[in-house]
Amino acid sequence: MSDERRVRILNATRELLLHYGYDKTTVSDIAQAAGVSKGAIYLHYPSKDALVEALLWHDADRAQQEIARRLQADPNGGSFTSLYVHGLRVAMEMPLLRAIYGNRQRVFGDVFKRLAPNFSNQAIRAAVIEFIRKYQALGLIRADIDAKVVAYMLAYMRYGLLTIEDVIPSDEAPPLDAVLDLLVDVLDRGFAAAGGDTAAGRSAYIAYAENAINTVRSQWESTKVEEEEDHE
Amino acid sequence: MSDERRVRILNATRELLLHYGYDKTTVSDIAQAAGVSKGAIYLHYPSKDALVEALLWHDADRAQQEIARRLQADPNGGSFTSLYVHGLRVAMEMPLLRAIYGNRQRVFGDVFKRLAPNFSNQAIRAAVIEFIRKYQALGLIRADIDAKVVAYMLAYMRYGLLTIEDVIPSDEAPPLDAVLDLLVDVLDRGFAAAGGDTAAGRSAYIAYAENAINTVRSQWESTKVEEEEDHE
Repeated sequence: MSDERRVRILNATRELLLHYGYDKTTVSDIAQAAGVSKGAIYLHYPSKDALVEALLWHDADRAQQEIARRLQADPNGGSFTSLYVHGLRVAMEMPLLRAIYGNRQRVFGDVFKRLAPNFSNQAIRAAVIEFIRKYQALGLIRADIDAKVVAYMLAYMRYGLLTIEDVIPSDEAPPLDAVLDLLVDVLDRGFAAAGGDTAAGRSAYIAYAENAINTVRSQWESTKVEEEEDHE
Repeated sequence: MSDERRVRILNATRELLLHYGYDKTTVSDIAQAAGVSKGAIYLHYPSKDALVEALLWHDADRAQQEIARRLQADPNGGSFTSLYVHGLRVAMEMPLLRAIYGNRQRVFGDVFKRLAPNFSNQAIRAAVIEFIRKYQALGLIRADIDAKVVAYMLAYMRYGLLTIEDVIPSDEAPPLDAVLDLLVDVLDRGFAAAGGDTAAGRSAYIAYAENAINTVRSQWESTKVEEEEDHE
């Protein structure tokens, strides 16, 4: 399949998942939205689940590349705060990623539980804690705070920001730029150490991010159950 | 009804809501758990909804008194950080309150939407922003940050902390004391101004909290639809 066609199919899948949710999206709908035949989809993706899974890895790769690109372009791009906030901004801007982080049942139905019932994020959480320790050693995060607790706080702040629309209507939210500017300001004051080695930080992050996606992927593959083909 | 009996009924209601959720809890279950007759409950609460509503106000009052008590006992009890963290700790310790802030469909079913379909938290959010401005004027929160954005950040941090158990199993979370200690530390560095008038802050908070609960209550009453009696 041509790359252009593959991306067209994945884009259609994303759009329908976000709009109608997993349960109400069929492979026929996706074929129609992408302007290809159902057969063309089944030639490359044995099931709707396989399609959703391919889309997830596709978007995860895109996000990682986009974060790396922004960090390279940011003169302050190795600081702890810049990592966290670039990551958050990309998650806010990529609705599927936002839905994953936000644990959205509507978008994904129970596809993850079904595909990999024993999948756990524990390995990646452990990697985050190790990464924070590295940043403390590089003088980029205060050394006097517990990396485990820092990781937990960063996780609940991100989760809160990505899901707060459930309780505060988004038309009442301040502009995203103002929200992220204040976050940067508070994190700089609260977590950052002064005078660390940001160039080393950036390299450490790139290595960490590649490793992290591999960790998640191998954890995912090892907990995956046999997929069935569906030809609705 | 005696106060002791009333509290016994409300406690049973709380316990069953948290354990089985609204939809699976009946007035008969509550009567049995409280050791009273169904008739005794209906004498004072015309419906399950009325009971849930009474429980909510009961717990909201308890929470407010408990927060005020802790602030009085805390030598630093008028600082911005102490307000926020005492409030958070009480919410973490009162499971029904946690469920309200955490927007838990399972616990409450659609009872709020049914009772007061047009209820909005907008008035209370506006009051929070006014309160933050007051704290800025008292020199207790940095004056160079936008109160609206501060309120939003405090809201998503709280929401994230109260719901993160959806994505991080609670047995993997650091101890609550460590979590709240780091939060206090980061908020002190990020938001607090030095040398404000904490005694004035505490008084302002007590006045604000009483007013806030009245604001929510009158907003609730004005959007409430007629309740029907149910005698299952």
